Amino acid sequence: MNDKVIVNEVGLRDGLQNQPRHVSVEGKLEMLDSLIAAGVRSVEVTSFVSPKAVPQMADATELYGRLPSDKGVTYEALVPNEKGYERAVAAGAKTIALVLASTQMMNEKNIGMSLERATEVNIAVIKRAKTEGIKPRSYISTAVGCPYEGNVAPEVIFNLAAQLFEAGAEEVAVADTIGSGDPAQVRFIFETLANRYGAERLAAHFHDTRGLALANTWAALECGVRKFDTSIGGLGGCPFAPGATGNVATEDVVHMVERCGFRTGIEIAGLRKAVAVAEKYTEQILGGRVLSWIESQEKRNHAKASAAAE
Amino acid sequence: MNDKVIVNEVGLRDGLQNQPRHVSVEGKLEMLDSLIAAGVRSVEVTSFVSPKAVPQMADATELYGRLPSDKGVTYEALVPNEKGYERAVAAGAKTIALVLASTQMMNEKNIGMSLERATEVNIAVIKRAKTEGIKPRSYISTAVGCPYEGNVAPEVIFNLAAQLFEAGAEEVAVADTIGSGDPAQVRFIFETLANRYGAERLAAHFHDTRGLALANTWAALECGVRKFDTSIGGLGGCPFAPGATGNVATEDVVHMVERCGFRTGIEIAGLRKAVAVAEKYTEQILGGRVLSWIESQEKRNHAKASAAAE
Repeated sequence: MNDKVIVNEVGLRDGLQNQPRHVSVEGKLEMLDSLIAAGVRSVEVTSFVSPKAVPQMADATELYGRLPSDKGVTYEALVPNEKGYERAVAAGAKTIALVLASTQMMNEKNIGMSLERATEVNIAVIKRAKTEGIKPRSYISTAVGCPYEGNVAPEVIFNLAAQLFEAGAEEVAVADTIGSGDPAQVRFIFETLANRYGAERLAAHFHDTRGLALANTWAALECGVRKFDTSIGGLGGCPFAPGATGNVATEDVVHMVERCGFRTGIEIAGLRKAVAVAEKYTEQILGGRVLSWIESQEKRNHAKASAAAE
Repeated sequence: MNDKVIVNEVGLRDGLQNQPRHVSVEGKLEMLDSLIAAGVRSVEVTSFVSPKAVPQMADATELYGRLPSDKGVTYEALVPNEKGYERAVAAGAKTIALVLASTQMMNEKNIGMSLERATEVNIAVIKRAKTEGIKPRSYISTAVGCPYEGNVAPEVIFNLAAQLFEAGAEEVAVADTIGSGDPAQVRFIFETLANRYGAERLAAHFHDTRGLALANTWAALECGVRKFDTSIGGLGGCPFAPGATGNVATEDVVHMVERCGFRTGIEIAGLRKAVAVAEKYTEQILGGRVLSWIESQEKRNHAKASAAAE
């Protein structure tokens, strides 16, 4: 068994993009430092999208220029199209991530393109990246459910994954953007893709909207998937996907997979500090299920100690 | 695939036993009616324990005498020992459940017996029930973790299960009383027991203390287990097991397993009403993850409709 799990932190991108409070470059770098201190070594840092559409990501170039380069961290930038790709590469990105929504309506509402056109754009950027020595990852978003079209047939995902791998994507991440997936669907999708392309070329991105993210994570782990997107403290949501609140919390995934015998290299104690930093900059209460439990245990122990001291 | 899942409601017993607010027989019967109306057909109603130890269960005999008998519901009563068994049978119980904690310390703290003595008591009651036409179920509690002794070796569970099946238990339920189990442990335990005794003779009882109950439920489903204890709205905890708050919510399990293609015969809309009844009598806010999601969707739709009407 391959017992190493890569936890790819997306709090700085998926987590922040929908936050009403602007977080400065300094704030983002402090969030990043706290994550790195906890042991995180894979980070989706930002997206090179239109600053008008997503003001929170307007500082993408400056942020990329100031990333710590001596910590062994793999950074990636999300790019929506060729223009975003060029900005990302100019800013120093070595790994880029493209996102392809699985349905006509999600593409039209989100980026004003048909599914066919969006697929072409993704493929063109992947091919260009390959020739320019940049590592392309591909996301298939709204992969098990679309806020506009409802359920998505697995065959749609398999067809898109085939085109993306064929174009040269080094990895395909399947994203349950609105958190509607269940472990039976997740198993079917990842089992099929793992048989075709190998589990080491897959990643999973779950939202905990209906409480199923950890069950889905376990289902994907059972298919051999060893790379998972997570967001510190459960920060996040998508401004263009109604109901897409709540990325699965980094600490919940780390806690579960470590208990299951996998190794992430990440410490929960460090993640608690990272949650506190994220709370400071986003001005909201964050934290996954395991932190609630740890805090309740601490309160209980504190109460016991106080009672014993009296 | 056997697609029928039995959701065994334990809110009236495990859910209520630790509640500070006394719930009358009438309140319990109203809770039960709302659960039956939602489609629940398997209910752990009460426990015939010492009224001094668990005052909330002092009305066990009266409650049993007033259970609706025309709804096709299977009721069970938890009994701690031979005396409890006699009270339960006198009250009309046809199915009884025995609980055997897996560790020395849990037995000593909980019932003042050694593990050996507790095992003997369980076996004696199982054997007597079999000769008297009463169906005995057995729980192995603190099966993956004990609040006093920590981790429990799976061999301990396998050894106890062997003794209980040998004595005549028709079913063995493995209970993660403190919610410390992870899906890898759950898979190992249920895979082993299913291979030895058949998955149809097993049941699972999870607490969502650290957010892992649904992942554990999926892991057990994958081993063929089709019977799960749940508590309406997540009501519950165990007064003798520190940290054992939070039975997995009935609505969360029903939602997940139905999405995965299984059939429970239970409607989420009905469970929402049952949650409201349980809230009324326990005077606390209840509700699983899926209800939070449904409520947020309703608020959003309501806000949209209001905006459209203006």
